[in-house]
Amino acid sequence: MVQAKTWILKQHFEGFPKDSDFELKTEQLSEPKDGEVLLEAVFLSVDPYMRPYSRVRMQAGDVMIGTQVAKLTALYGLEEVCAIKPGETLLVNAAAGAVGSVAGQIAKLKGCKVVGSAGSDEKVAYLKEMGFDQAFNYKTISSLEEALKNASPEGYDCYFENVGGPFSSVAIAQMKAFGRIAVCGGISLYNDTSPQTGPYPHLHMIFKQLKMEGFLVSRWEHKNKESLKRMLTWMQEGKLKCKEHVTVGFENMPAAFMGMLRGENIGKAIIKV
Amino acid sequence: MVQAKTWILKQHFEGFPKDSDFELKTEQLSEPKDGEVLLEAVFLSVDPYMRPYSRVRMQAGDVMIGTQVAKLTALYGLEEVCAIKPGETLLVNAAAGAVGSVAGQIAKLKGCKVVGSAGSDEKVAYLKEMGFDQAFNYKTISSLEEALKNASPEGYDCYFENVGGPFSSVAIAQMKAFGRIAVCGGISLYNDTSPQTGPYPHLHMIFKQLKMEGFLVSRWEHKNKESLKRMLTWMQEGKLKCKEHVTVGFENMPAAFMGMLRGENIGKAIIKV
Repeated sequence: MVQAKTWILKQHFEGFPKDSDFELKTEQLSEPKDGEVLLEAVFLSVDPYMRPYSRVRMQAGDVMIGTQVAKLTALYGLEEVCAIKPGETLLVNAAAGAVGSVAGQIAKLKGCKVVGSAGSDEKVAYLKEMGFDQAFNYKTISSLEEALKNASPEGYDCYFENVGGPFSSVAIAQMKAFGRIAVCGGISLYNDTSPQTGPYPHLHMIFKQLKMEGFLVSRWEHKNKESLKRMLTWMQEGKLKCKEHVTVGFENMPAAFMGMLRGENIGKAIIKV
Repeated sequence: MVQAKTWILKQHFEGFPKDSDFELKTEQLSEPKDGEVLLEAVFLSVDPYMRPYSRVRMQAGDVMIGTQVAKLTALYGLEEVCAIKPGETLLVNAAAGAVGSVAGQIAKLKGCKVVGSAGSDEKVAYLKEMGFDQAFNYKTISSLEEALKNASPEGYDCYFENVGGPFSSVAIAQMKAFGRIAVCGGISLYNDTSPQTGPYPHLHMIFKQLKMEGFLVSRWEHKNKESLKRMLTWMQEGKLKCKEHVTVGFENMPAAFMGMLRGENIGKAIIKV
């Protein structure tokens, strides 16, 4: 008999998640029958999307969801949604996160100029190490508008959106004509109890003929095999680096999840069971 | 010697345009020289876009801009931006206007279900006459959300956006997965002195993988010849009807412009000089 631990969503999150929203359960697994296998998880992942998805896909009492798709998300956002071209300028926010850091590096591999925003000086240093052309700490600048203008006075062709909220309003105003915005996430909005509001983007979208598209990585599942192969090659050649923020202990998963939502991680937040 | 009249933008509009923003000027035109022709305008046009464009393209003292492109705008918004397919459901707002009424009719020609919103019972009756499947007066309904749900309980594949503001926030929430939004105009926003705000659409855009694209009719100029031919054929065959709201007298052009911004017209607002 094997003992398994699971984290249950005890109740739906209201506002920022709290310890009491989670419950650790232990269950006895029966011996695998003929034709069955029993797997042991060695590493697990916590991701921003788990916060909004829990509301849509889960009921209170369900085992918490979890998958790991950050690198493919970055690739498809750039290639399929933005259709980014060499020589173009990309803006990425939450750029030191699992998706943003990979998106920026892939855009560099494609011959683009990359500007990244992150929430600490340590993260900004990491982005520069990863080859970002420009990076800034959005928490310490005096004006986001000025920071974006200084980083790319000519504006932005593509914008990999992970944050939403006021950041997006300022960024949209600095897109070039025919700019493309891949809406991958909106981490600044996930814990709202009432929806945050901002200026309607219609006039910018019309005058500059901007395209804004939300996406889920699952849309291009048929491309995963080829995509993973391509990215593995980049990693083996040292062209693509992935940092991991490791939390030790299955018991610490909720803490790791909440820490990730607060931006405490650089790169992918994973849990070593 | 010929006397010509022009309307000058005396000063940039602040909020809703007013009579004193315009100035009528009379000038003497010299006799045409060899190789020159002198044209007399018989009909002129006032269009919503003139309000936001004046700020971007004009200086105080310039002669007011004006062109007539409503039908092509409707066609390209549906075909190029939405890539609408037979059997899909389209939502159009400002549907009794020059662009909206044509967009709805073209979508019907393409075998779609069409839902239109307009600002008077007379306009709603006109939409039904034009073959719209569902139409409602947004000024007299108790809930836009309910009206949109009743008109198409299964949601919307495409949304031809002419209005912006709170209407768009309610509509975006009722798009189907992979819905496309052609952002053609935002008439509810044009006269704002400070930008109107609404909830950020990120979560709807991500979960439903929505595409939202702003556009200007000039992008597809290379298609105009073929497009105009196609639409003329529809008109000759009685499949496409275009209503005109005629104001008589060049002197009344500012009044016609302001009336159009207030939604007083059904169909294209034109001026018989």
